[in-house]
Amino acid sequence: MSAAKSGHIAVIGLGPGGAHQVTPEASAAVVDAKWFYGYGPYVDRLELRPDQVKVASDNREEISRAQAALEKAATGERVAVVSGGDPGVFAMAAAVCEAIEAGPAEWREVELTVVPGVTAMLAVAARIGAPLGHDFCAISLSDNLKPWETIEKRLDAAAGGGFVIALYNPISKARPWQLGKAFERLAKILPASTPVIFGRAAGRPDEKIVVTPLGDVDAAQADMATCVIIGSAETRIIERGDRPALVYTPRFSNPAQGARA
Amino acid sequence: MSAAKSGHIAVIGLGPGGAHQVTPEASAAVVDAKWFYGYGPYVDRLELRPDQVKVASDNREEISRAQAALEKAATGERVAVVSGGDPGVFAMAAAVCEAIEAGPAEWREVELTVVPGVTAMLAVAARIGAPLGHDFCAISLSDNLKPWETIEKRLDAAAGGGFVIALYNPISKARPWQLGKAFERLAKILPASTPVIFGRAAGRPDEKIVVTPLGDVDAAQADMATCVIIGSAETRIIERGDRPALVYTPRFSNPAQGARA
Repeated sequence: MSAAKSGHIAVIGLGPGGAHQVTPEASAAVVDAKWFYGYGPYVDRLELRPDQVKVASDNREEISRAQAALEKAATGERVAVVSGGDPGVFAMAAAVCEAIEAGPAEWREVELTVVPGVTAMLAVAARIGAPLGHDFCAISLSDNLKPWETIEKRLDAAAGGGFVIALYNPISKARPWQLGKAFERLAKILPASTPVIFGRAAGRPDEKIVVTPLGDVDAAQADMATCVIIGSAETRIIERGDRPALVYTPRFSNPAQGARA
Repeated sequence: MSAAKSGHIAVIGLGPGGAHQVTPEASAAVVDAKWFYGYGPYVDRLELRPDQVKVASDNREEISRAQAALEKAATGERVAVVSGGDPGVFAMAAAVCEAIEAGPAEWREVELTVVPGVTAMLAVAARIGAPLGHDFCAISLSDNLKPWETIEKRLDAAAGGGFVIALYNPISKARPWQLGKAFERLAKILPASTPVIFGRAAGRPDEKIVVTPLGDVDAAQADMATCVIIGSAETRIIERGDRPALVYTPRFSNPAQGARA
């Protein structure tokens, strides 16, 4: 008897929230799958046919979700795992790879496609100007999966190196103090005037974008749906009268304006 | 006499290359503009109506292109500036902001929209697994606009801090040695087994994705259309028999596996 058909798993990035930011490739991948695994709010964004099946799970269950999806795909089914933003940035693509590496041999035979999307920091940046216009980094502030000391080391390296910093997973009920600590740490390296952007739900109807100097920042302005972007010492603000101010980081770098560290 | 109508400028990200990765928002912004400014190959991707006008310019002329676009918009016209990938990542959004800041007051009255897109590193990462699955940074390797010493400092900070590194603008005819130097420098900090991904033209028909250990790397594998991703010490490879190997960085971080630095 020959091996079972290996099936297919697509890890799909749905973008920051609005249908206008879902790529045609992602839409086609949704049409093409039968089983949909994902965090409830992401799965709920999908408009599915009666023959398509939603399997929603909780936020913290990435690995068991990836395993369930791979198990289904290994039976020959067409499976989708959906992420907000881009699935490769602090999202399900890495969880699926982890599950494949640790899982049974037949999971390696499943055909895997990753469909990229517009990740949150790009959507937030677009709404305010071009804060990511020069070298930048993305750090997950969650210390569920790495020690807080590693996060502190990376914040220091990024700010000291002159990178703009995008913080994902900045705060949650279970992690209330980390963002404030991160700001305190960055304030030792960066000027108090450094712009901090709180970008909540960028591209969605409930979008809220707030810019505050690092010296006056209040971590309570962030929630789970916020991506926080902290400028470098070279990030600038352009006042525009009646129009909202622009925040951008020039393409050129002048070391004389670099971080104090 | 009242002021002239202020016009509108949209800085549009066309994604990595294929029409399947252009968001509906970007497509709508193209329909909505009359004048199109951009680097020739990006402008040539557009299918325009007879009443829409292409103004192509050379690769290195970002600021004069931004100025020409703002001048046109300030006369009340609807103008688009197109970028490949995301316009906020080493692209035209920052150049337009620079031009606004240095330009005449009426340029601040122009309505500005930035339309985000899938940037190259996300498209490359999607084709190989999830190399950006944990903390990462993006560095432009061009020393046209910043000193080489600044780039070296950032490479050291990023590799020493445990970030995966995406290099944009890795090499060109005018900058032949920089990528090789960068690899040499990173090899002092990262294990020789660290995966390096050369992602050329991801998502396009001429796509080519190559993975090499840092110890065997050859900078000549890159060209201007390549985005290079260098793993961290935690980035892993999953062999899959007949299927291409996956490269991914786990969501969790174990400091014991961190960089040697």
